[in-house]
Amino acid sequence: MLGRGVWSSLRQGLSRGLSRKVGGWASGEGRKMDIAGIYPPVTTPFTATAEVDYGKLEENLHKLGAFPFRGFVVQGSNGEFPFLTSSERLEVVSRVRQAMPKDKLLLAGSGCESTQATVEMTVSMAQVGADAAIVVTPCFYRGRMSSAALIHHYTKVADLSPIPVVLYSVPANTGLDLPVDAVVTLSQHPNIVGIKDSGGDVTRMGLIVHKTGRQDFQVLAGSAGFLLASYAVGAVGGVCALANVLGAQVCQLERLCLTGQWEDAQKLQHRLIEPNTAVTRRFGIPGLKKTMDWFGYYGGPCRAPLQELSPTDEEALRMDFTSNGWL
Amino acid sequence: MLGRGVWSSLRQGLSRGLSRKVGGWASGEGRKMDIAGIYPPVTTPFTATAEVDYGKLEENLHKLGAFPFRGFVVQGSNGEFPFLTSSERLEVVSRVRQAMPKDKLLLAGSGCESTQATVEMTVSMAQVGADAAIVVTPCFYRGRMSSAALIHHYTKVADLSPIPVVLYSVPANTGLDLPVDAVVTLSQHPNIVGIKDSGGDVTRMGLIVHKTGRQDFQVLAGSAGFLLASYAVGAVGGVCALANVLGAQVCQLERLCLTGQWEDAQKLQHRLIEPNTAVTRRFGIPGLKKTMDWFGYYGGPCRAPLQELSPTDEEALRMDFTSNGWL
Amino acid sequence: MLGRGVWSSLRQGLSRGLSRKVGGWASGEGRKMDIAGIYPPVTTPFTATAEVDYGKLEENLHKLGAFPFRGFVVQGSNGEFPFLTSSERLEVVSRVRQAMPKDKLLLAGSGCESTQATVEMTVSMAQVGADAAIVVTPCFYRGRMSSAALIHHYTKVADLSPIPVVLYSVPANTGLDLPVDAVVTLSQHPNIVGIKDSGGDVTRMGLIVHKTGRQDFQVLAGSAGFLLASYAVGAVGGVCALANVLGAQVCQLERLCLTGQWEDAQKLQHRLIEPNTAVTRRFGIPGLKKTMDWFGYYGGPCRAPLQELSPTDEEALRMDFTSNGWL
Amino acid sequence: MLGRGVWSSLRQGLSRGLSRKVGGWASGEGRKMDIAGIYPPVTTPFTATAEVDYGKLEENLHKLGAFPFRGFVVQGSNGEFPFLTSSERLEVVSRVRQAMPKDKLLLAGSGCESTQATVEMTVSMAQVGADAAIVVTPCFYRGRMSSAALIHHYTKVADLSPIPVVLYSVPANTGLDLPVDAVVTLSQHPNIVGIKDSGGDVTRMGLIVHKTGRQDFQVLAGSAGFLLASYAVGAVGGVCALANVLGAQVCQLERLCLTGQWEDAQKLQHRLIEPNTAVTRRFGIPGLKKTMDWFGYYGGPCRAPLQELSPTDEEALRMDFTSNGWL
Repeated sequence: MLGRGVWSSLRQGLSRGLSRKVGGWASGEGRKMDIAGIYPPVTTPFTATAEVDYGKLEENLHKLGAFPFRGFVVQGSNGEFPFLTSSERLEVVSRVRQAMPKDKLLLAGSGCESTQATVEMTVSMAQVGADAAIVVTPCFYRGRMSSAALIHHYTKVADLSPIPVVLYSVPANTGLDLPVDAVVTLSQHPNIVGIKDSGGDVTRMGLIVHKTGRQDFQVLAGSAGFLLASYAVGAVGGVCALANVLGAQVCQLERLCLTGQWEDAQKLQHRLIEPNTAVTRRFGIPGLKKTMDWFGYYGGPCRAPLQELSPTDEEALRMDFTSNGWL
Repeated sequence: MLGRGVWSSLRQGLSRGLSRKVGGWASGEGRKMDIAGIYPPVTTPFTATAEVDYGKLEENLHKLGAFPFRGFVVQGSNGEFPFLTSSERLEVVSRVRQAMPKDKLLLAGSGCESTQATVEMTVSMAQVGADAAIVVTPCFYRGRMSSAALIHHYTKVADLSPIPVVLYSVPANTGLDLPVDAVVTLSQHPNIVGIKDSGGDVTRMGLIVHKTGRQDFQVLAGSAGFLLASYAVGAVGGVCALANVLGAQVCQLERLCLTGQWEDAQKLQHRLIEPNTAVTRRFGIPGLKKTMDWFGYYGGPCRAPLQELSPTDEEALRMDFTSNGWL
Repeated sequence: MLGRGVWSSLRQGLSRGLSRKVGGWASGEGRKMDIAGIYPPVTTPFTATAEVDYGKLEENLHKLGAFPFRGFVVQGSNGEFPFLTSSERLEVVSRVRQAMPKDKLLLAGSGCESTQATVEMTVSMAQVGADAAIVVTPCFYRGRMSSAALIHHYTKVADLSPIPVVLYSVPANTGLDLPVDAVVTLSQHPNIVGIKDSGGDVTRMGLIVHKTGRQDFQVLAGSAGFLLASYAVGAVGGVCALANVLGAQVCQLERLCLTGQWEDAQKLQHRLIEPNTAVTRRFGIPGLKKTMDWFGYYGGPCRAPLQELSPTDEEALRMDFTSNGWL
Repeated sequence: MLGRGVWSSLRQGLSRGLSRKVGGWASGEGRKMDIAGIYPPVTTPFTATAEVDYGKLEENLHKLGAFPFRGFVVQGSNGEFPFLTSSERLEVVSRVRQAMPKDKLLLAGSGCESTQATVEMTVSMAQVGADAAIVVTPCFYRGRMSSAALIHHYTKVADLSPIPVVLYSVPANTGLDLPVDAVVTLSQHPNIVGIKDSGGDVTRMGLIVHKTGRQDFQVLAGSAGFLLASYAVGAVGGVCALANVLGAQVCQLERLCLTGQWEDAQKLQHRLIEPNTAVTRRFGIPGLKKTMDWFGYYGGPCRAPLQELSPTDEEALRMDFTSNGWL
């Protein structure tokens, strides 16, 4: 496995030489924080009585710390953040900050429905140690979430955030795609450094890279299923649920892409598609957590209303891993 | 205009003689609380600095108190509840309870994403004076919200709620239709008294009435645009954003339906469709609040990220009222 | 059962006194052909070798002739028209004309993808005996089917058609809703007499009735599932797949609506929803034809790629009829 | 520019050494026809009076013959095939056969709604010179187009076709995605050689390549917007509307991908996304034909109901080309 230094070099080539800058706004020269790399979106472990199990959270992080991830995303969609209270959200971030290696990035999901609540949560996330904030699109009033409304929302958040902001578009959960024209406008904000795009539309991702080329704006794929294709069109990394269970493999795929070994990358990518779909769209967080149990992490139960998998679903989930040689 | 007693009689005929029972579970005889009638889903007024304006809220309620509504819905989708803190949600309900006439029902929206949070909010809503809870479907993980998950969620909430529960399906906001089979199962719970259905699919509404006929289960139309048709297939009332501005007309439509004056009802219904669409799907809460300003209520601003209407939109909104003779 | 004369009177009340006029354009007084009433959309019977079975077609029509239908729709979506050659389409219409009672209307589906082909098919349909043409929206290039394009299409067809034209919107098949503004514009054409709307959105249907009130423009519900609700908002009839098997019941529902017996209408409507869904959206034409076999008509096979029902589906189909007391 | 021989070599590397075989079933060794490469989906030129303009068709082909395309697709979605009569469809294919270079492939769209009509059209297409048939999914009864129905349809067509069959999934037009499990099953048919997939979901495309790896089954991207990403996940070519106007550039993108020059490929891909969207999803065939006029081909009018672009749309179309340096 390549050492940290080599990975950094590899990433710099791909990420257009962005200098890494952690913990604040872009520096005077107009450089934005470099967020290139792979991140697992950490799950939130619960006890049998549905309390947050901080001990298990730390254990998981120690195990995940062995892989050459760029960092961790806390409270992405896989973190069950809509089920956490505000204080739980902050406590989880705080614990992750303490448990994770110092040289990695902590990207914390701070999105709320109102702009004001999002600003407050973002500021608080920074205070408990987040390096950057990932801000999901508000969505309950999706019929009114025009480009103008979303630009207003993100601009306000970015203006007031002490840490860089990453846009987050996840239509499977929100029913809303952050429009390309809004992304392009927002990319010009000095405190907005990139987007996590989970929609899987690489034409759109390529266009975003193209139209934001002058802004040091970075695109992260929101899923391992289209990671190779995302690199091919100019993404610089990925936030991949699958990295919670196949961390080495997802990092290996990154390395193959960064070093131009596209044939091997393709073969590996192919074998990751079904497992990835299984722990995301097909079986959701219950599927991801069940798989974590299989791979030596603590998955455990979800908070209600998310339900455990049925035995039939569990069997299908297992098959998606065994048929591709991962179990 | 008809007096309260006559309205009650009219409603009883339609609502299959359900006896009204406020403030607790169904009585021993198996009768559920009668929720028949028209409800405006009250908006939440904000000051110029986006604070809740409780004074304006009370003024609006006093004005709305003049109409023969059955009661008020607080924190339906039009109440901007996703933008309120938990304490604001409770304070708003508490203020409405004090400001509204004693003989009317207060239905409070208590839905949250997690089952546990929904239970807690429902209990709290009861403590501050809600007569029943309207519980929207959780939706962020809509891909996992199977009938089984939703049945589990609502059963838990209804088991633990000190007040009757009304299901709430609003696919335009949630991207999720509460499945008919789940509704039918849930209708058998003694503490689940009905559903507010905002999807506008009257075939579905008729089927729900048909399949829940033995359960004293009541269907409320979630919008004035299909109110007449809903009565025709067996609904017993409606929660109508339009009733915030055309309260007399919506109540008049109810009366015409209950007394079988279908021709007049049809004419009135026709003139309400465009205004209703304007303050709901077309221009959303900003449109509703702007119209409230025109009709002598306090509409005021929305919380961000909801934006004010553009002058062009405002003109189109006005036209939807003037062309139908309401302005 | 009421006699023909009574039915006519009933309908005239509802259909705003439109005088019936068959076989040509609206007369000088500006009156459009009256199309009020119930129509079964006739299926096309095939032999075991997938030839059109004209004999069985005539037998079905003789049996259907016993009910007080206003007429027959030939080559609606249930007629498998996309599977017929042009000459088969015309021959089927010709045979139906000969087999059906003289005093009923024959509405023939003449829609094709191109405007030119639709014009030619419409003219040919008239020549073989159609009283009016039902013209489905072209849909393969739905992304370009703006209101302007559809207005142009229908205007051309109506200009050149020797018989009145009925618009036909069926989004479940076409993925396209004929926009209300296009319907309103087209309603002013003297040779466009109405719309068959199969979308099931009664708010939309009510708005269409409202906005076309001065044009003698008539709305037909495209399905029995929302027939009562459609009458309630101003429709004058329906084209109902279910009428192929429960003809008496659908006509009875019409009568109850026209005579204002809404309570009985509601009870009957409720019992028709599941059977209707079963023979339309749930099991499609294979379900409808299987049911026809049960009810004494000839259903028979569909043309490929439509497949026979599985035994499981057939059982579910039967249950939708038995549980409502129809089998 | 590379010569034909080099192109062939390049393609063979990528397309897993499939030997080219034109004009019949796979040979005894189980090899399927090699269809790797770039194809413009030829438009159908019409005169001012909407007649097919065969002369202009031939002129366009002569000009397109200058590029290193693998061949031509006739009567894909861009060919307005739903607007052509059966005899026009065949005549167009026949003329293209005569006008095009002998060493290129002619892939003819032969899809119809019924299985029987599709079989007949496929056989006829072969008789007038098609090398392979591209068969779009039937779609009018999409609610019944299960995997089983589609497998039955395509198996029948492939069994009876004298030329190899290419599956064709284009959800923007059909509202239907050919399910992956159906594709995998069909890939085992000796006369089904690949799929043209226009949906743009590269996760799906990668999975198809992965699951059909043992079948010599070839995937063609259905649009230039995701061509690079498609190559990256294992596609062997593309059918690209944009190749009708930017033929050299699309072929250049192919070459860069095949020779592993991914950085240059990415830059070129980026500049093709907006023009590609403009001539497909955004402005459709009217946009493509207008652009052909600008680039020295004959575009001309579409058949109705397709409408000409408005001046505003035409301006936006032009901007999508000029802003990327192509005009």
